[in-house]
Amino acid sequence: MTARIRRFLSDVRPATPCLVMDLDSVRNAFEGLAQSLPRAAIFYAMKANPAPEILRLLARLGSSFDTASIYEIRDALAAGARPERISFGNTVKKQSDIKAAYDLGVRLFAFDSAGELEKLAAVAPGARVYCRLHLDFSSTADWPLSHKFGCSFPMAKELLTQAGEMGLDPYGVSFHVGSQQRDAGAWDMAVSRAAMLFTDLAEQGVNLRMVNVGGGFPAHYRTEAAPQNTHCEALMQAMQKHFGNRQPDLLVEPGRSMVADAGLIQSEVVLVSHKQKGGPRWVYLDVGKFGGLIETLDEAIKYRMTTSRDGGPVSRAIIAGPTCDEVDVLYEETPYELPNDLKPGDMVEFLSAGAYTATYCSVGFNGLPPLKTYCV
Amino acid sequence: MTARIRRFLSDVRPATPCLVMDLDSVRNAFEGLAQSLPRAAIFYAMKANPAPEILRLLARLGSSFDTASIYEIRDALAAGARPERISFGNTVKKQSDIKAAYDLGVRLFAFDSAGELEKLAAVAPGARVYCRLHLDFSSTADWPLSHKFGCSFPMAKELLTQAGEMGLDPYGVSFHVGSQQRDAGAWDMAVSRAAMLFTDLAEQGVNLRMVNVGGGFPAHYRTEAAPQNTHCEALMQAMQKHFGNRQPDLLVEPGRSMVADAGLIQSEVVLVSHKQKGGPRWVYLDVGKFGGLIETLDEAIKYRMTTSRDGGPVSRAIIAGPTCDEVDVLYEETPYELPNDLKPGDMVEFLSAGAYTATYCSVGFNGLPPLKTYCV
Repeated sequence: MTARIRRFLSDVRPATPCLVMDLDSVRNAFEGLAQSLPRAAIFYAMKANPAPEILRLLARLGSSFDTASIYEIRDALAAGARPERISFGNTVKKQSDIKAAYDLGVRLFAFDSAGELEKLAAVAPGARVYCRLHLDFSSTADWPLSHKFGCSFPMAKELLTQAGEMGLDPYGVSFHVGSQQRDAGAWDMAVSRAAMLFTDLAEQGVNLRMVNVGGGFPAHYRTEAAPQNTHCEALMQAMQKHFGNRQPDLLVEPGRSMVADAGLIQSEVVLVSHKQKGGPRWVYLDVGKFGGLIETLDEAIKYRMTTSRDGGPVSRAIIAGPTCDEVDVLYEETPYELPNDLKPGDMVEFLSAGAYTATYCSVGFNGLPPLKTYCV
Repeated sequence: MTARIRRFLSDVRPATPCLVMDLDSVRNAFEGLAQSLPRAAIFYAMKANPAPEILRLLARLGSSFDTASIYEIRDALAAGARPERISFGNTVKKQSDIKAAYDLGVRLFAFDSAGELEKLAAVAPGARVYCRLHLDFSSTADWPLSHKFGCSFPMAKELLTQAGEMGLDPYGVSFHVGSQQRDAGAWDMAVSRAAMLFTDLAEQGVNLRMVNVGGGFPAHYRTEAAPQNTHCEALMQAMQKHFGNRQPDLLVEPGRSMVADAGLIQSEVVLVSHKQKGGPRWVYLDVGKFGGLIETLDEAIKYRMTTSRDGGPVSRAIIAGPTCDEVDVLYEETPYELPNDLKPGDMVEFLSAGAYTATYCSVGFNGLPPLKTYCV
């Protein structure tokens, strides 16, 4: 918990549950990454947290924006981003949305299929397009991104060749090593595949100029992960090794690593109970899977937690959300220990909760309002 | 698809995705259940679909309401429900919310733990309380509800005895056989346990008067389920067998079975693609897990689907949603077949989608607005 968040919570005592974001932390994350990767253009993956205050801050700092929908494009523009700093990074887009983005000045689009290329050629003539490659990193990322998106290597070659013939600008290639990637070595394999694609296509007269390495930089959850600098060094080494003195434009799309550690979810204990004598202790909070913590599905993301009773003896607890849905259990298999004297009304904080929380929240399941965000 | 929904879609051509609810179907479901269970008080589990038009219709028809939060209680009252027809059915409630409900006139509350009973005794003196029993039906329900809620039989006995000593009215017992329960025989086991609790407590001078059998009546998804009448007959037989001529008040809390079949989600194909030559066909829609179809998690609920190209040859497809999230795949293991000539812009309908869709929807993930509901 940062000093600014601590002060806000003690001064304002906001109703729970809520998400508090420290904008200084976001600024530090952006500037830290810009220092570690001076050659890279940073496209903030705004789906991670599109709070207007965050978008405005990053636009002022010179960030570019990776967007997933025409709605996000409009929000980025409203926050001060210029259209030439926006990438429409979703490989699944309605043709009408591509046209709307193009009309707003956006000229950079992702694709991974023949069908998407046809739509782009129809309504975004001359736009820079990049093809997303499918790579398999599922074993070393907590939230893998290697299945629904991306095409095979041979298909990428074919589509990038066709792109030029269709009046588009075949700009480059993208891949994602997986959100919350733990293995810094994954970068070498991915960059080597990208470089191979550059070489193969150059032989056919298609000159790619850009590598988009996605996000995947980790945040500070319970699970150990290599620090961001280790990832950046591994990436730069891989770029040097595989592209040598012909370095392409380098794009990164950090989402989680830009905002996760800057945010804290404050929640309140609603009930502590046992279902039977000698049974496990259940701790029910006023935030759950449908209130912003959907990434606890299958206990994938294991948040660090603090409570207002920390310091005394602790013991195992099953941690659950407030809704009448059996699925709304946060941690049962993962061994979380909470203070023995925790009781209704006590505060429980989820740390590094600034990414993929507020907008994932349900619009009103069980009548509960969406998670409120405060930026300090 | 009902004739009224068909007419609305062809007359209005609403932007997709959207949910269209046929209020006549809701009325038929309510009246059908009231006929099948003439002795039961119907408490609509409004979390299934709290659209104001549905709440107003059911209030007019004489329905009572099972609510999960103080917000739902206020919505039910705003729709015309009287407080004596409202149950605060969540076993996990903030004390301040119990007090607010009590101040609004609500006098019927669920609990399953000592901690909850203490809160009720503190701020809802004299209220009727019922204890939720834990029963295990997980093997025969598509969306089981037997783990997070309910206490053991011995604990229920103890807590219901204490309730009276604490100034509350120990009214009865509740259980849930599971949402979308497929085994009509589950009712006998559950009712027999409830009757045993009545007998045991009567020996201690505690006279329970109510059995709340929850919901669990099925909707028409792809998976076969016994029809509602079979369930109602099994329930009435079990009540007769185990309670004889001393029938208690009977409460049912249908949610899914009241609204699921009355609703249809209209969506549009955004992309049809292959990731590699000879690979499976992917069909991407403009609705997905975060846009209302969260019950497709683990492919639990298998919706029936129709398309605007039905009639010609079909083949297997993986069906996915529109967001940049790997988890947003609807059906991959389940063998869905879709028309071979399906293409972007074609319409795809999810049938029996009126329950647990609109309010489960994310508030804005990927910038996408929540699912809009039309009641016709």
